[in-house]
Amino acid sequence: MNPSQSDVRSAVSAQAVGRLLRPESIAIVGASPTPGALGASVLANLERNDYRGRIYLVNPKRDEIDGRPCVNSIDQLPDGIDVAVLAIPQPAVLDAVRALAARKVGAVVIFSAGFAEAGQQGIAQQREIARIAAQAGMLVEGPNCLGCINYLDRVPLTFIETTVSDAQAQRNREHPAIGILSQSGAMMAVLNTTLASRNLPLSYAVSTGNEAASHLEDYLAFLLDDPGTRVIALIAEQFRQPGRLLAAARRAREAGKLLVLLHPGRSAAARESAATHTGAMAGDHALMRTKVERAGIVLAHTLEELGDIAEIGLRCAQLPARGTAIVGESGAFKALCLDLCEELDLELPALHDDNAPALRSVMPAFVAVANPLDLTAQGLVDPELYYRTLSALFDDDRFSAIVIGLIQTDPVTCAIKMPPVLRAVRELRPQKLVICAGLDEGALVPADYIAQMREVGIPYFPSTERALRAVARLSELGTRDFAQAVFEPITPGMALPNGVVPEYRAKQLLAPLGVPFARGELATDLDTALTIARRLGYPVALKVQAAALSHKSDVGGVILGTSGDDALRLAWAQLHDNVRQRAPGVALDGVLIERMGERGLEMIVGARHDPQWGPVILIGFGGVAAEVTRDIRLLPHDLTREAVVREIGKLKSAPLLHGYRGAPALDVEALAEVVVHLGALLQTTADIREIDLNPVVVYPRGQGVLALDALMLVAADPIAT
Amino acid sequence: MNPSQSDVRSAVSAQAVGRLLRPESIAIVGASPTPGALGASVLANLERNDYRGRIYLVNPKRDEIDGRPCVNSIDQLPDGIDVAVLAIPQPAVLDAVRALAARKVGAVVIFSAGFAEAGQQGIAQQREIARIAAQAGMLVEGPNCLGCINYLDRVPLTFIETTVSDAQAQRNREHPAIGILSQSGAMMAVLNTTLASRNLPLSYAVSTGNEAASHLEDYLAFLLDDPGTRVIALIAEQFRQPGRLLAAARRAREAGKLLVLLHPGRSAAARESAATHTGAMAGDHALMRTKVERAGIVLAHTLEELGDIAEIGLRCAQLPARGTAIVGESGAFKALCLDLCEELDLELPALHDDNAPALRSVMPAFVAVANPLDLTAQGLVDPELYYRTLSALFDDDRFSAIVIGLIQTDPVTCAIKMPPVLRAVRELRPQKLVICAGLDEGALVPADYIAQMREVGIPYFPSTERALRAVARLSELGTRDFAQAVFEPITPGMALPNGVVPEYRAKQLLAPLGVPFARGELATDLDTALTIARRLGYPVALKVQAAALSHKSDVGGVILGTSGDDALRLAWAQLHDNVRQRAPGVALDGVLIERMGERGLEMIVGARHDPQWGPVILIGFGGVAAEVTRDIRLLPHDLTREAVVREIGKLKSAPLLHGYRGAPALDVEALAEVVVHLGALLQTTADIREIDLNPVVVYPRGQGVLALDALMLVAADPIAT
Repeated sequence: MNPSQSDVRSAVSAQAVGRLLRPESIAIVGASPTPGALGASVLANLERNDYRGRIYLVNPKRDEIDGRPCVNSIDQLPDGIDVAVLAIPQPAVLDAVRALAARKVGAVVIFSAGFAEAGQQGIAQQREIARIAAQAGMLVEGPNCLGCINYLDRVPLTFIETTVSDAQAQRNREHPAIGILSQSGAMMAVLNTTLASRNLPLSYAVSTGNEAASHLEDYLAFLLDDPGTRVIALIAEQFRQPGRLLAAARRAREAGKLLVLLHPGRSAAARESAATHTGAMAGDHALMRTKVERAGIVLAHTLEELGDIAEIGLRCAQLPARGTAIVGESGAFKALCLDLCEELDLELPALHDDNAPALRSVMPAFVAVANPLDLTAQGLVDPELYYRTLSALFDDDRFSAIVIGLIQTDPVTCAIKMPPVLRAVRELRPQKLVICAGLDEGALVPADYIAQMREVGIPYFPSTERALRAVARLSELGTRDFAQAVFEPITPGMALPNGVVPEYRAKQLLAPLGVPFARGELATDLDTALTIARRLGYPVALKVQAAALSHKSDVGGVILGTSGDDALRLAWAQLHDNVRQRAPGVALDGVLIERMGERGLEMIVGARHDPQWGPVILIGFGGVAAEVTRDIRLLPHDLTREAVVREIGKLKSAPLLHGYRGAPALDVEALAEVVVHLGALLQTTADIREIDLNPVVVYPRGQGVLALDALMLVAADPIAT
Repeated sequence: MNPSQSDVRSAVSAQAVGRLLRPESIAIVGASPTPGALGASVLANLERNDYRGRIYLVNPKRDEIDGRPCVNSIDQLPDGIDVAVLAIPQPAVLDAVRALAARKVGAVVIFSAGFAEAGQQGIAQQREIARIAAQAGMLVEGPNCLGCINYLDRVPLTFIETTVSDAQAQRNREHPAIGILSQSGAMMAVLNTTLASRNLPLSYAVSTGNEAASHLEDYLAFLLDDPGTRVIALIAEQFRQPGRLLAAARRAREAGKLLVLLHPGRSAAARESAATHTGAMAGDHALMRTKVERAGIVLAHTLEELGDIAEIGLRCAQLPARGTAIVGESGAFKALCLDLCEELDLELPALHDDNAPALRSVMPAFVAVANPLDLTAQGLVDPELYYRTLSALFDDDRFSAIVIGLIQTDPVTCAIKMPPVLRAVRELRPQKLVICAGLDEGALVPADYIAQMREVGIPYFPSTERALRAVARLSELGTRDFAQAVFEPITPGMALPNGVVPEYRAKQLLAPLGVPFARGELATDLDTALTIARRLGYPVALKVQAAALSHKSDVGGVILGTSGDDALRLAWAQLHDNVRQRAPGVALDGVLIERMGERGLEMIVGARHDPQWGPVILIGFGGVAAEVTRDIRLLPHDLTREAVVREIGKLKSAPLLHGYRGAPALDVEALAEVVVHLGALLQTTADIREIDLNPVVVYPRGQGVLALDALMLVAADPIAT
């Protein structure tokens, strides 16, 4: 997306968001006495929640609704109302927005669909709304949204029936709470219901819809400033201000707030669908993921996970950063957990008699010390076993998370097993995550035990699968390496030409920065070519050079392994012949004569500067087989060399690098070095949009790497961040 | 596991199982008046469920318990009691079993642990129990089990508090029901609770524990004969009678019964754990999976899935065999489903205006016809939209499953959306799977709607993720290719030597069956070698041949690409030198002289005859890169050639076979042909334990394949099936 064509991007101030979410006066445009009508639902919501600010009603045909005065047009409203809610059909929206701007309204909530997602006319109307909003300094939420809810002060600006009791609001204010930001109104509503049903304190929920003039990023900035909001659940299909999002995420991490994001688009079909129904370009999901994870966001894969991770994030002061221990009551369950944790990549540090004497000492002899633990049914006759087991695990620094999988059976069984678990957490106050999950979903678990668990900070889950999945996502965050490479500012030693940079120039630019290439020089005539080749030593490679020939192999512009003067003469003629025939009219800069590189394992390294998201690095295995299986990883550009080495180690074919079948271990450090150099270059030189080194041959450890080809793309356009 | 060393394998008769599960007389050995004691719990369970048969109590110190007479020893019991339940400590079990056998008891239930899973002494005791049981023709359930429950006649032989009301039992008898078989007692209990909480009719639940003298396979045979049991949920960590299991599974499929299996052991850690806590060898999970899927079993990945699949299997007369349609109310939800279905490999046939006129005609213009459908919030104002949409989808043959994802919000919203869904199914009686799932878990859904859905055969799920996962597993079953290759009986044209068969003999054996090898002959002296090489034409390969040298490359026993007589003489000497030095004392059968094969894409084909599970085929990509990424598949040995071609197409690197980057498409059919030949051979010649063809070079379509090496292992032991 060209930034210059994009929607209004100037940030909406936190003050303006505050006026929307904590309004002292509200106008309902399209107020109605008919139950079920949008306007009636909005008013009913305000009354249901004892809204104490001023309410203005607008209806062209009514002077009074339910005993409240009603004006006939927006023009009759006083100036400076905080929020106007538009409960009117789509065709009337644009005029209403204009009139509200004239009345200096602070914010407008537009429920109606039929704008950018509905074709050309809708796009134009939405642009006009954005223009008016920007000109008037008026916040617009939507269109195509479900409004917003302030759970602290009981202000629902939505037509979805919403009740926040006084007691709930007080709890929401007095405890750390979850904020909800969703582009989809339906998903906001769904998440509100789910989280509220688990008795989780909420602060604000906002649906941003088509984001004509205010973006998710604006509300995020507001929520980050809200001291009571500790966890923010985000649902987005594309970010319109990636730079602001990433900055906010970094700020959240510093402030100890957790951002959890559900973002469809892993599949091509989902990206297409998002583009259709929101009227916006779908982004590159892998790129988004790389950048938001780098900034400290946790990605949920499903709606279930989003709620589960948010709940754990809120209830547990301490998020997992080391291993997980599982306490169970069955051998088969133990085996099931081992399968699942392997798939989830969740670390279960091994336990046995020798390395866990404290645990051993509190167990009956027939219970093996292990992880997962199988306490057998012994807890039924010795309930204190739960207490003793947890006590030993609380003191064990190898674990920052403990998942207890209970067979609940019935209220009697719960009354045996749950009290010692509760007492352990209450008395011992572990500084770690403790989760209780039932194996037998549907068992009659007394609600009071669940309430007590939540009170002491134990999330209760209906299944261990879900608990482990959520813990795995959070553990991944806890063990994520946030170290940043320290870059010297890099200035290319030459002016950057716009467009495709031919190989020889790309190499001239990159070589001084530390990217190793084969020795070589550009020849513009045969005699020079011969001189160069003799100096380099045969065999050499010949490659034609021209900005217009980025795929020079395709036109026969590359001849490898030329040995001796005669062969070089032949090759020279052949090359020029090929280009004349297959790329007539292309003027060559010359022919690059290079010493042939030794053979070795071929990998690829790429770098890309996305105008929206910034720089990112691609690393992977080269060759046809690896190409087919797509054995590649996208990395943040600012990883340390050590972190890059670890990431390379996660490639599926990584064993090939570490001395496979008696081959020598390869120089992964030198490969990582190249990655770091490209990262440094892209960080300081935003004009470079793409660099492709393919292949990069990796030699045995200590012998480095050699990039055989280099492709580079420069675009000196201004870059939006 | 050597079958001759294994536990008693003769099948326990269905009649014997029937006597255990429907006993007319029960003895409780270790009866107790102390509430909570095992014996007391067993008796309380029988009384709670109004057991009408005779009850005998045994306690050495009591003559009466709760008004019931009690004898002091087993010897005082009458002969021929149907079942004795042992509620006594482990050390007393063996003597009790002996005494019960003397009293001609039909079946014994042993709860105690401390047998095969607890070391040498326990193993010996368990063997003795098995011996006594076999000798007396007495069924033994356990040890280390939780007993069994008959839900039809209200007979719980377990200490877990169990109540089956008269009304429930009647419902269980009058409706198709789920049977539960689990080696783990805890998992049986867990599944009982979960399924009962969903109001699912149950028939029998049996936990088999250590399986000293009766196996899961015995109870399975009984449940298959039970007309009321339509779905059987299995939890196993290893099967002791794979042959019987597979035969039962095939029978179930013919009878229209569904078997769902949860079997930990995908991870090595889980297999190790299973071996420890059950005292039995852990099997090869991939092999088990290949064979049970071939026999028609659905594998669940988690406990959640097991219950979910069983529920769908029971409630829906028609299991999915074609595409799935998803009906939703939000664009973001649609995108989330697309992501998930791609991961689950669940087919969502595309819908649009042109290919779905019926659907188009019932929708408002602003709702796009698509799959998943996004009805928007329109259903709130036009609830009949659900009815019309479902009606159109019911009539659409592309779909055999419909998942409705509802935003439930609150009872009022449910009362709007759920009735038209219910009415559609009630009135239109679709012959397809219809599932209703909530997006907002925890919403207050009136229990009556859930009950009504279940009554008309709509499983209700708390999340769409779970619904889609279960549908994906069942759709995979529905679209599984059960066609069997028709094999001509194959008799190898030569006697099979025991042990490793050298390459040249393996090739002599396999070539006539249709496996293409390079032309070649065995030479025992240099002159013959020269004659053969000249006849074949240079270049040739030389490979030393001896049964003791299965890895002949490792000793320098292979020289490739020898051209000309002189080179052959040199190679001959070198080969013999190498073998003398690196494998001294090995007598060679000779040297195989082969015409060098053309280069091409290298794959591997293997065949294995597992003594427990029978034959299986392995197919995969060769070469180091593919070896590292383990791009292989295990296949049933009796697939048709067409099915093998499809399976080859599922390998990750399969694009390399289909004309990648301008290369010619390769002869996958010829490769499949080789697979079918090996399958035919293994089916008729059980002595062949392993065949490895590595590599098999695949040439362009029409040019066939060439197996360059062949390794074969023969073991003429009797094979258990």
